Order: sequence, then structure tokens, then C-alpha cells
Amino acid sequence: MSERFRQLSPSEFFYRNKEIAGFSNPARAVYQAVRELMENAFDATEMHGILPHITVQLKEDSEGRVFLAVEDNGIGISSLEVPNVFGRVFYGSKYVLRQSRGVFGLGVKMAVLYAQMTTGQPVKVRTATRRSKFIYEFEVMISIEKNIPVIKSIKVSKNNSGWHGTRVELVLRGNWSQAKKRVEEYVRRTALIAPYATIIFEAPDLSLKFERTMSKLPPSPVVGKPHPKGVDVEMLKMMIESTKKSTTLLEFLVGNFDGVGAATATKFCEWAGFDPNAKIKNLKNDEIELLASKMQEFSGWRRPKANMLSPLGEELLVEGVKAVLNPEFVTAVSRPPSSYSGYPFIVEVALAYGGAITSAEAPTLLRFANKIPLLYDEGVDVSTKVVRDKIDWRIYKVEFPAPLAIVTHVCSTKVPFKGVGKEAVADVPELESELEAGVRECARRLRLYLSRLEKQLEVKRWETTIRKYIDDVARSTSYVTGIDENLLRSKLYDLVRSKVARGGNR
Amino acid sequence: MSERFRQLSPSEFFYRNKEIAGFSNPARAVYQAVRELMENAFDATEMHGILPHITVQLKEDSEGRVFLAVEDNGIGISSLEVPNVFGRVFYGSKYVLRQSRGVFGLGVKMAVLYAQMTTGQPVKVRTATRRSKFIYEFEVMISIEKNIPVIKSIKVSKNNSGWHGTRVELVLRGNWSQAKKRVEEYVRRTALIAPYATIIFEAPDLSLKFERTMSKLPPSPVVGKPHPKGVDVEMLKMMIESTKKSTTLLEFLVGNFDGVGAATATKFCEWAGFDPNAKIKNLKNDEIELLASKMQEFSGWRRPKANMLSPLGEELLVEGVKAVLNPEFVTAVSRPPSSYSGYPFIVEVALAYGGAITSAEAPTLLRFANKIPLLYDEGVDVSTKVVRDKIDWRIYKVEFPAPLAIVTHVCSTKVPFKGVGKEAVADVPELESELEAGVRECARRLRLYLSRLEKQLEVKRWETTIRKYIDDVARSTSYVTGIDENLLRSKLYDLVRSKVARGGNR
Repeated sequence: MSERFRQLSPSEFFYRNKEIAGFSNPARAVYQAVRELMENAFDATEMHGILPHITVQLKEDSEGRVFLAVEDNGIGISSLEVPNVFGRVFYGSKYVLRQSRGVFGLGVKMAVLYAQMTTGQPVKVRTATRRSKFIYEFEVMISIEKNIPVIKSIKVSKNNSGWHGTRVELVLRGNWSQAKKRVEEYVRRTALIAPYATIIFEAPDLSLKFERTMSKLPPSPVVGKPHPKGVDVEMLKMMIESTKKSTTLLEFLVGNFDGVGAATATKFCEWAGFDPNAKIKNLKNDEIELLASKMQEFSGWRRPKANMLSPLGEELLVEGVKAVLNPEFVTAVSRPPSSYSGYPFIVEVALAYGGAITSAEAPTLLRFANKIPLLYDEGVDVSTKVVRDKIDWRIYKVEFPAPLAIVTHVCSTKVPFKGVGKEAVADVPELESELEAGVRECARRLRLYLSRLEKQLEVKRWETTIRKYIDDVARSTSYVTGIDENLLRSKLYDLVRSKVARGGNR
Repeated sequence: MSERFRQLSPSEFFYRNKEIAGFSNPARAVYQAVRELMENAFDATEMHGILPHITVQLKEDSEGRVFLAVEDNGIGISSLEVPNVFGRVFYGSKYVLRQSRGVFGLGVKMAVLYAQMTTGQPVKVRTATRRSKFIYEFEVMISIEKNIPVIKSIKVSKNNSGWHGTRVELVLRGNWSQAKKRVEEYVRRTALIAPYATIIFEAPDLSLKFERTMSKLPPSPVVGKPHPKGVDVEMLKMMIESTKKSTTLLEFLVGNFDGVGAATATKFCEWAGFDPNAKIKNLKNDEIELLASKMQEFSGWRRPKANMLSPLGEELLVEGVKAVLNPEFVTAVSRPPSSYSGYPFIVEVALAYGGAITSAEAPTLLRFANKIPLLYDEGVDVSTKVVRDKIDWRIYKVEFPAPLAIVTHVCSTKVPFKGVGKEAVADVPELESELEAGVRECARRLRLYLSRLEKQLEVKRWETTIRKYIDDVARSTSYVTGIDENLLRSKLYDLVRSKVARGGNR
């Protein structure tokens, strides 16, 4: 018996394997749909310099149908692109080197697919780009076998109010009551990390409103070039293919990579034993392989630029942590930019201790990636590996159970998520070591703080003991020396006070 | 600034997101490549009634290049299909309802992509189908942007020896020394679950040879139809589309679904309020939605057939567990077939206690899916959820730390893996409840065993106490009654013995 083979379209692949994209059960499907639409809403606003105003409405009927509508005040979607954006898997605007919440060109299509397979209903999209004279309304379904959109209806109306943005409506089978807790946590943590956004969330038994508390947006990330340290053979080949015939290796390096000037490129060629004037198109396969591995090894590249990224910054991180965890001690580290496989990234870590944090047998972990709160699959995240397995907290004077919380934020032009559901970050070595450095830096500060606390306690104990005997000592010394007892007592008290003030040091 | 959109090919998508397929670092890449090739080797043999003979050779050079070759004695691949099978993502033979290790049409392509991006080398394939007069040798690369194979060379030679099977060779950058431990565990556990296979594994510092210990293969799974309980609106629509115009609902149900005869179909139509003679092509969208939801709800369907599946069986499971864990107590349950989303599945659970199992704060878990050992991502697997979170082991007389191990084996025509790396199974409700039922059944048997142990201990204590006083009692009684002391003593000993023999019961 011979085998019969066939090709699946990307739509059919994800239709058959919806668990992979997070749609594994009716509760998780609701959570995932809310996430995907909200993350698109943020990308359409914040990333383009617009203060986000995002409205989410969720209803359910007695048959288990969930009606979900998410509206933003973003840049809108060109009417020519709407069908593909909602009806074609792997079609997207986010395949560039710039930090964004969405990356796979899959999330919203997956929600559309899930709606379609559980209720047979199309997605409804209402959108207008900035300064558009018209508002467009589409109903779109996906032709799964072909991975192409099917337009069920289009309506065009005059845009009299100057509105711009996108409203997306879906009808899917789901379990809202089971999804509620996680959705609420997701919305709250999203609001926490984006204090410049207004988020209104209305659903059965859950009504949330977060007004923006600041109206300054972080700088919008720009689209950049790949970093030379992160190339692979295939990437080099593709780049060389689209290069002119006369281009030299030097010109190729300077023209295509982040932060590579003529001086750096020359130094690299010398170090790696390549002729800078060699024509790039003449390199053979094994030379390209060598070039890639030398580029990965070379330590003389500049650190990648951070302008493709939009980190939170230490200040915002500390404020956020204070607001949510109300700890006794908090510190944050925003690491310098680094890169893996050509993608720049920044790791931010905050550590909070004591106060309202409950003691536990291991550190409490709050994970974020490109400002998305990650709530599922903690057990397999690189942050968990670093915080729970790699670090021996006793070195930092922490004995469990302890009231210790760690917040990690990975931002990158491509976060190495372990799955397209975007719930856990993979243990890419470069990222892991940056995370470890960040956590250890925070942990050292904690040790300092705890040492100081310990010292203070020690001094306190010493002071208490000394004070107990001061009267006796003053009296006896006065008797022996004839010096006035009150004077002696006051001198002795001064001594103790000044020693305590110096933290117990001589 | 408006957004620029573009479409990614499936190859490009996975090239950009290799972490999703398990290729997240140089060690994991080696592990994943070994897995994908070995699993294909099993599918090419065992699934087609051939006793597997699988050879794996792995070498490395000083530059970090890993040379991997896997050879099987399977059915081979038609020379027409070789390029697509190795060079086209989502192209496969396994998109049918039948249990197999591979399912995504992605694994081997991912390994080829990874080799190509790290060393620029093509995959080498040598293959012959059964009774083929020729042996074909290919070198294939992937055109990533187009998702089509590029044939670098073909060689055809006479097949004088009657050889059939496939040999695949890859060159990738990887870290063998870091991968070794996991790879060894993977090979060992694969051998354990397939005692009818011979596996020879040769690598630096690791040489494993497992000769088959039995030469009876489990029955090969057959290709089947979807179960009616697991349809969705989209599936129904696609099925209706490829149905003749004159087909009635009754004929449609009988002809397209697993285990649906005319009687069951009639009963269903009556219960659901559908006219069995209605032309299926005339159903409107909301009727199809209703039909899907009624089909999901109806409790009168037969359980899905198990002949698409290839479970291990309780006996093999018990033997396997004894061989590996050497416990004091072991029991296994093979649950009856069930289904989710139209896919039949069987859950098998074994429980082992005491003996060589070390005590731990939680049950030790060994997971398998379609005979694949799952080693990574335990923290997010549905088995972990059931065994660690849902079951209160005190009910079953287990107090932690305890020497308790649970083995789970999920087999299905489509295991709901959480990622294409096939490391964790999603918490699909139907599957979760079957797993829970299986674990609880085993746990009840453990409780019985532990109760009996307890009783025995109790009787033992009673016996010890009684024996201590038997001499005194015999002596005193003899004194009072005049009956011979030795006779009395022997009677009393008899009494104790018989009570102990009855397990302490009267």
C-alpha cells in the first residue's frame, strides 16, 4: 500500500491544529480572541503615535454563543487590505524589524477561523484610515482550503465625523464564565503596562474602565535593519541574491546591517580573513557559511540600536510594580540592547520584596513580552527557568518561604515565543543570559538592602542592650572618678546615638 | 504613514519562527532533528506492518557541525514525492484519520530548513519503495520564499539487493554534548514503548543498541471516518459541498461518519427535530450551525471505533513499567475509545508505587503520545494538570512524599499537541476527563492495595501482641481449668494463625 500525499494551505493547517494557536477549549478560545483583537488595537494606535482608546464589548446568549466587539481609534486599515488582513493566514504588516504586539500574521485570522468553525458567522469589520472620506464595512469569511478571503458584503458610507480606527465583531462558541478570571487579569495587566491608554471593557458580570493616567506616549519604534551578529546562511544568501552584481563585501556589510560603518566592516574583514573588495555575488556556498559563522562570532560589532524597540524604562516599571504589588522594596533594571539571530532585544527586570507580597516557596513571577502580559504556560518560559532553576537565592540572602516577586519584560523586534499562542518565551541562549544578568543585578541590590536591614537590626539589638546598662555604668563611673553622673550619662547616650547613626560602624 | 502588507509562505513563516517547531537553541535543535527523523522512520515501518530496524548515526566536527543520518527498512518514498516530502512545508501523507507519530507535515522540513540556515547544506535522501528496481538518491534544498523544493542532484542506481527503506542525512550546527542526555532518554523510552523494534544509535560518547524482544507487531491502524460527535460548522459545510445534490440528511449521516447506521441516524434526526429526508444541500447556514451543535450534543452515537488507533494495551504497559521503574505495585488501565472534534482517541494510564521508585513531593510523570516519549514542557501538559492539580491523592491513601509514578499514553488520529514541536498535550475537555477517569481508576486500585497493606500491618501488630501473652494465658487457663497447658497453647496458636490467614477478619 503506497501513501497518498497532499499539500495543506496555511489556513487548513491552523484550522486542523487550532490548539497550537491557543484555541484549545471554549474558555481559552474566548480569552485568546479577546487578546488577539486587543493587541491589534494597541498596534494600530500606540505604534503610530496615537493615544489608545480601546473599547471591548462582550455578550453571550443562552446557546453558548459569545459576541465580541473590539474598537480602537487607530490608523485604520486600507479598504484594499481588509479582506487579506482578516481572511488570509500569514498575511500581515508586521514582518519587519520593529517591536509590535502582533508578529505572526495569524492571531486575528485564527479568531476568524474559530468563529467560522463554531458558528458559521463571518467577521464584521468597520474601518476608516486617517483623513479617509469614507467608512468601510466588510463581512469576511475564509476559504480554508485555498487560504483566501471570501467577501460576504461591503458597505461604504460617508465619514462625516472624521472618525478613524477599526471595529471588529466576531460571533464564536465559547465559555465566558470560565474565561472571565483570566480575561480580567489580562485586561488589568495590560492597563498597568500602558498607563497612556484608555480601556473600557464591558461584559456580563465584568465591567472595567481604565482612564489614561498620562498622555505621553513612549517614542514609536522605527523599522530597522538586521544586526550582523544574528545572520544565518540562508539570510545571507537571500540578501546576496537581491544585491547588485558589482557590490563588494565591504559595501554589502555597510549597506545591509544595523550599525556597521566602513571602519567596523574593514576591521571585521581583516579579522575574518575576507577580502573587503571581493564581489559579494562571487562567494561560494562554503564561503557564505564561513562568512555567516564569522559574523556571528565577531565581537567588534556595535550593540544593536534600540530605536526599533519600545521598552518601558526603569521608572515606569518601578511605578507599575509599586501600584500593583505594594512592596516594601522595589528595584528595576533595563538592560542595554542585545541581539539574537539578527533581532535586537532588550530585557527589563523588576524585583519586589516584602510589603503586601505574600510569602511563597518560590518567587512569584509576572511575565511580559512586547507589553503583552503572559498568563499561561509559565512552567515552560525562559524567565521561569532563570528565576526558579538557575539562581540560588540563598546567595542573595533570600530564604524561602519569602515575599519575593520578579517582573520580566522582554521586548524585541521578534520575541522568540514557543508557540503562536504567544504565552511562553523560548530559552534562546542570548536572551537567557541577558535575563539572568538582569535578575542577578536586581538580586544584588536586594542583598544590599537586606544586609542593611540586618545591620540595622543588629545595631538595634546592641543599642537596646547598651541602654539597659547605661545608668549602672554612669553611676559606677561617677563613683570611681568623681565626675558628675548626669554628665556621664548624657555623654554615653551621645556615643550610642552616634554609633547607631553610623549604622553600627566605628 | 500607512502600513505595508505582505504574504509569507509557510516555509518562510517557520524559517522566521523556528522556536515554535522546537529549534530554539543548538542543543534542542539536535534533539528535535533526531526525533523528527526517528519518528518518520517508525511511521514508515511499524504503521505498514514492517518490524522496524532503525539506525541512527551522529558525528560532529570541531566547528560545531553535526552530521546526522537515520536509516530505516520501511516502505520507502516514491521518487516523485521525495522533493515535496523534504522540501515543502505542510506537504504530507499523514493528514488522514489514522494514528501516526508524525502529523503536521512539518517536522522533517523543519530539520531540513534548520540545516540549510545553519550550514547551507542540502538534505541527502536515499530511498527505495518495496519491490523497487531502483534506488534513488536526492539532494534537496528549500526555496523558502516560495515554499517549493529545489533539487540539487538526483542519482539512480540498480537495486540489486532488494533493499527498501529510506536513509536521510543532514548537516546542521548544533551542540551534541548538551543534547546528549535528552537524546539518550528519548531513545531509551522509544525503545521501551516499541519492544518489537531494533534501534541502533551511534554517536560520540553514546552507543545504544536495542534488539527487538518480540517479533509481533501491534495491528496496523486503518484510515477511518470522522466521528459525528466531533463535527464543526466548517467541517459540515466542506462535507456538504462535496456531496451530490440528491443526497438526503439521512444518507449524508450514514455515508460520511464513523459508526452511523440508518437506525442511529433516524433516531438522531427525530431527537434533533430534523427531517431525515431533507436534501442536505438545501440546509441554510443557521440550520447547519444547529445541525453541528445537535450532533455534538446527541448522546446516542456509538463510541468511535478503535481500529484507526494503535494503543499499547494494559499488558504491554505493565511490562514496560515493571522493566523501567521496578516498583512494588503496578496497575494499568486502557480506557475505551472516546472522541474530540471528530478525532477518536484512547487514553492509557499506568500507576506504579514503591519498590525502586524514589519518594518525591509530587507524583513522577512519564508522558507518551502516539508512542512518542514527551520529555520537554511537562509543566503545561494536560497530564500534569490532572495528576498534580485535579487529584487529591489523600483520598487514595497517598501522603507525600511518596514513591508514586504515573505513566500516561494518549493515542489519537490527532493528538492535540500545544505546539508543532510535539512536547505537550492541550487540555481538551474530553481528553482531560478521560485522563482523569483513567488515573482515578488506577488510584482506586492503589488505595485497595494500600488498604490491604494497612490491614496486614494491623494484623501483624495484633499477632505480635497476642503471641507475647499466649504462654501466660495458656499457663493461667491450664491452672484454672486443669486442661493440659501444651494443648491449650497449641489451640491458641491455631486460633491466631487462622485469624491472620483471614486477614484479621472474624
